[in-house]
Amino acid sequence: MIVIMEEVSDKKQVAVVESAIKKHGYKSNSIRFSSESIGTFPETGENAETLKELPGVKKVIEKEQNNRLARRETRQEDTIVQVGEEKIGDGNLTVIAGPCAVESEDQTMRIAEEVLESGAQILRGGAYKPRTSPYSFQGLGERGLAILAKVRDKTGLPIVTEALDPMTAPTVAEYSDMIQIGARNMQNFSLLETVGKLGKPVILKRGMSANLEEVLLAAEYIMSNGCSEVVVCERGIRTFSDHSRNTLDLGLIPVFKRVSHLPIIVDPSHASGVRENVLPLAYAALGVGADGIMVDVHDEPQKARVDGDQAILPAEFEQMMHHLRTLGNSIDIVVGCH
Amino acid sequence: MIVIMEEVSDKKQVAVVESAIKKHGYKSNSIRFSSESIGTFPETGENAETLKELPGVKKVIEKEQNNRLARRETRQEDTIVQVGEEKIGDGNLTVIAGPCAVESEDQTMRIAEEVLESGAQILRGGAYKPRTSPYSFQGLGERGLAILAKVRDKTGLPIVTEALDPMTAPTVAEYSDMIQIGARNMQNFSLLETVGKLGKPVILKRGMSANLEEVLLAAEYIMSNGCSEVVVCERGIRTFSDHSRNTLDLGLIPVFKRVSHLPIIVDPSHASGVRENVLPLAYAALGVGADGIMVDVHDEPQKARVDGDQAILPAEFEQMMHHLRTLGNSIDIVVGCH
Amino acid sequence: MIVIMEEVSDKKQVAVVESAIKKHGYKSNSIRFSSESIGTFPETGENAETLKELPGVKKVIEKEQNNRLARRETRQEDTIVQVGEEKIGDGNLTVIAGPCAVESEDQTMRIAEEVLESGAQILRGGAYKPRTSPYSFQGLGERGLAILAKVRDKTGLPIVTEALDPMTAPTVAEYSDMIQIGARNMQNFSLLETVGKLGKPVILKRGMSANLEEVLLAAEYIMSNGCSEVVVCERGIRTFSDHSRNTLDLGLIPVFKRVSHLPIIVDPSHASGVRENVLPLAYAALGVGADGIMVDVHDEPQKARVDGDQAILPAEFEQMMHHLRTLGNSIDIVVGCH
Amino acid sequence: MIVIMEEVSDKKQVAVVESAIKKHGYKSNSIRFSSESIGTFPETGENAETLKELPGVKKVIEKEQNNRLARRETRQEDTIVQVGEEKIGDGNLTVIAGPCAVESEDQTMRIAEEVLESGAQILRGGAYKPRTSPYSFQGLGERGLAILAKVRDKTGLPIVTEALDPMTAPTVAEYSDMIQIGARNMQNFSLLETVGKLGKPVILKRGMSANLEEVLLAAEYIMSNGCSEVVVCERGIRTFSDHSRNTLDLGLIPVFKRVSHLPIIVDPSHASGVRENVLPLAYAALGVGADGIMVDVHDEPQKARVDGDQAILPAEFEQMMHHLRTLGNSIDIVVGCH
Repeated sequence: MIVIMEEVSDKKQVAVVESAIKKHGYKSNSIRFSSESIGTFPETGENAETLKELPGVKKVIEKEQNNRLARRETRQEDTIVQVGEEKIGDGNLTVIAGPCAVESEDQTMRIAEEVLESGAQILRGGAYKPRTSPYSFQGLGERGLAILAKVRDKTGLPIVTEALDPMTAPTVAEYSDMIQIGARNMQNFSLLETVGKLGKPVILKRGMSANLEEVLLAAEYIMSNGCSEVVVCERGIRTFSDHSRNTLDLGLIPVFKRVSHLPIIVDPSHASGVRENVLPLAYAALGVGADGIMVDVHDEPQKARVDGDQAILPAEFEQMMHHLRTLGNSIDIVVGCH
Repeated sequence: MIVIMEEVSDKKQVAVVESAIKKHGYKSNSIRFSSESIGTFPETGENAETLKELPGVKKVIEKEQNNRLARRETRQEDTIVQVGEEKIGDGNLTVIAGPCAVESEDQTMRIAEEVLESGAQILRGGAYKPRTSPYSFQGLGERGLAILAKVRDKTGLPIVTEALDPMTAPTVAEYSDMIQIGARNMQNFSLLETVGKLGKPVILKRGMSANLEEVLLAAEYIMSNGCSEVVVCERGIRTFSDHSRNTLDLGLIPVFKRVSHLPIIVDPSHASGVRENVLPLAYAALGVGADGIMVDVHDEPQKARVDGDQAILPAEFEQMMHHLRTLGNSIDIVVGCH
Repeated sequence: MIVIMEEVSDKKQVAVVESAIKKHGYKSNSIRFSSESIGTFPETGENAETLKELPGVKKVIEKEQNNRLARRETRQEDTIVQVGEEKIGDGNLTVIAGPCAVESEDQTMRIAEEVLESGAQILRGGAYKPRTSPYSFQGLGERGLAILAKVRDKTGLPIVTEALDPMTAPTVAEYSDMIQIGARNMQNFSLLETVGKLGKPVILKRGMSANLEEVLLAAEYIMSNGCSEVVVCERGIRTFSDHSRNTLDLGLIPVFKRVSHLPIIVDPSHASGVRENVLPLAYAALGVGADGIMVDVHDEPQKARVDGDQAILPAEFEQMMHHLRTLGNSIDIVVGCH
Repeated sequence: MIVIMEEVSDKKQVAVVESAIKKHGYKSNSIRFSSESIGTFPETGENAETLKELPGVKKVIEKEQNNRLARRETRQEDTIVQVGEEKIGDGNLTVIAGPCAVESEDQTMRIAEEVLESGAQILRGGAYKPRTSPYSFQGLGERGLAILAKVRDKTGLPIVTEALDPMTAPTVAEYSDMIQIGARNMQNFSLLETVGKLGKPVILKRGMSANLEEVLLAAEYIMSNGCSEVVVCERGIRTFSDHSRNTLDLGLIPVFKRVSHLPIIVDPSHASGVRENVLPLAYAALGVGADGIMVDVHDEPQKARVDGDQAILPAEFEQMMHHLRTLGNSIDIVVGCH
């Protein structure tokens, strides 16, 4: 059951509804979209009617489908996610760029300045890196977060970085402007619940073998813990097709936008696995209607400690931005920094 | 072994080379690109040296890889396929449109006129339809071909239609300007061989579970039988992802263009299976660098005998062409009729 | 619509029903199971009632599902397919073995004698080979068929061999006891229709990306052309899993046996692609309830012209038969020759 | 780099080697197999030579492949994992059975007694349940663990239960005899590291889209944290094939056993998703050479709070055990309790 409050409803009214809910034995998690409060509750009851009549309540949605906060049925208008000064989901193309991993302050600062100059709006960079092998470089950890924060302070770029587990997620939230859930963790439910409570917007990457329903329910885990600012990211799925690391499923974008009000962005770097395909897939992402792209950029990819093969050079990023802007302008889509 | 002749080489020189090849016991299949003749032969011999010295021979490529006529190593420049007055692979976006199946002269004519007016360059329409069930409508057969020919005569649109088996393929070639090999037949080798000999350009659809290498080798079957004018078509692959009928693998386009000189187009209709996704995927196809798109259009999709759900309406086609032209113009790509 | 005749119905009664069907404008294809005649017709009509009352008619099944002749709803009892003296589907484990390709009379005879001695019941061997590359060995063609026939005459082993296209299928039927449709041709509908009319039992291999419904409908193509003796073969599907050539989907066996009355066998050789896995997967096939197995055997696999890596040695075949017999005996399943 | 100590090496010798390793700046994690100590270290150095000469060192394996502790190259003999009195990997078929989720003491006790009587050796049951939807029953948590412990005390059956996150994993370890890592958590690296340190044997389920290399590296995460007792579990992968919930990849078993010394078991319940397929797939698992099976059993599956459709009834479990024993006896494999 979801209770949707009137846009004008004040905090007091929300509190009354929440206490009514609790009286019936349910847990109430408030979730606040830009203009509405929504509460969601694990089990539906016979109390829907009572709640409908409380002041400020706009509608009550009975449990029909498993995934609800993330669906259009619950919220018609597109959700716009705010990260620092930047907006994701407002009809333009948000550009998130940076190194796959934070390797040093110097490296991160250099790349941040390059991508900022070309028009990136948000800086990406991993401090905690999920690695297939326990013997691979696992990221700089909190030291990496501190570097990211320093780079943000100097460049003004808000930062998004990955949280790997519930224990370190609060630290990630402290330093960053947006938290990323990686593809391998899309169904790490403890992590989703923790991150949902940290008060920061979230990028949720689609799992390698997740179908649409599972993506929506992973978003639901985050949202039902209080976070309304979830951005889904298509980054390629695992198929038999072996010409690229993953198969970028761009057909998901229009389908997702029909069933959900959340923004959806595309990561062409992890999908292709090789530099040469990143630019064409970024253009395709604009064409298909994505709300943003997230790309790996490195100025010395041959020395990169993680995924150097897929990182594009700053000059390629500049070229990509130019081409995206040309395409975007023609159809009134702003690409990157204004 | 492949023998590539000088662009200036005349038929006599080619004949001399061919007879030298035959003398060594090999079969010689001439294949003529716009400016060169190429012969390919099942097994390599110790005779490469002798052939190299014959007049008109530019180079001799020893057997190194299985797939060769289709590869960039054999031919650096992009192959441009001519269909009627239209060119596929010249850097612009060729638009092929029409009903999935030819149902009647009236229906085909109506749709042809609509898509022509909006800028389609080639008319598609199936006369022989491969159907999963033996009890489904199997197409009008030769009667359908006659309708297509009539519509071409009236509209001037060249036609592409599917050949289903080696027996009826010659009839298909007689009526049509371009022959389509469907996804289910991508490894129907007898059909590929037959079609390779019919002297018409070919659209080869990627099989539902074909990897890049298999696509290239299927093209090789056609080419090694004498046909240099092969256009590959990405139409979605079969994966676990169930939000669409197939998963459109747009990442194939830039990879294919690096390894092959053949044009590659995209069919967003069969990939998505639903009308709503066709337009966004068509825009993505332009973005990713496809040489063309092929879309199902029907003016009464609810009555269509085959795949009505994925056919877009003429008005949607018009809207798609407008949007594609806007995007295309901005990056100097001509979309559809000039 | 399917008309099922009484077991006692005579040819005359069937003829009367058929002519009644034709009078209503439908095509009638008789199909004869061991004890019943079944006619199936492309479209259902309002005439079911009339047909029900004709003498000898047991029941009339209206069109409800696409695939019908192959389904349990149409025929409760298991279909037993007879090949020479051997039976497939009688509750025991039929063993089909032989070289992937017929390379010479000597090679085929040697291997046939080896597998016969170890208990194989049917000899397999390809004369027409579907090859991914046009430059690979394509089989000996009719010469290979003649070799197979000769080996059968000498050893008494009935032979199964692949038909590649509708033109050569009749020749294949002439020489062989059972016709194989390869995985790549599972949806080569012209071939299925042709083979359905040739009066020989058929092994239909599951396509690499075919789901259950498509397998049933491919069988339906063969059956609705008059052949009731279809054996389906699971040989691995294409997935992301790269430790073997294909992923053997043994879970299909019990599901298939619930929805269809046709026998289903397993080909562990093509599934695994390497010799080492063939034996364990053959034992698994027995465990899961398959009606038979088909394995590649070669006495000089390193010299084999096709798929030598997956062919087991005669000694391994002997060991496999011994182990299968031990397992089979314990649960009253006869393995191979009695 | 891996240092393998002599079987006779004492703790002091191990300590000397470890301190030598630390002196070179590496982290040393001791792992103790039945007879040897193995240390593994994140980065290789130039110090291999020095280490080789220390007393008790048998061999030093330089970094060649990413995954090492889990590989045959490191340890030739099969690892046997001890759980309570039971052994997994000793050549027999270990049977793990129980309800998918612990729902109540009564339910768990009843089912435990039933499966024990039929010959199960280890009791399974989830207290913490990973659920696709946040609104589904999430398990009884620690209360469920307490029930399991009580049931173990009464029946003598050792228990295996899932750990969902690093915070609750120590509690799981306290109550249980073996910890399960679920398929969705196969690459939850923080969880793997935590569980590796808890001193309990581990069942590691293959991720839905994990290839062999990734499974081995996930095992490596656990092992490199000190746990040598890892059992891998094949439970089906995600493919296009839609007749069952997942596609059981039994071909993995013989391949895995060639490259790794760890035991591998099969979960036919989660693979098939329906009760009817569980028994045949269990027999196939025995045939293919698995070291054990793990099956869901429920006496009131229609009331089960999780996955009731795939749970077999106690009577079916009894029938399965009987059939497995018959097959197993014939080839000298002991099935379940002795």
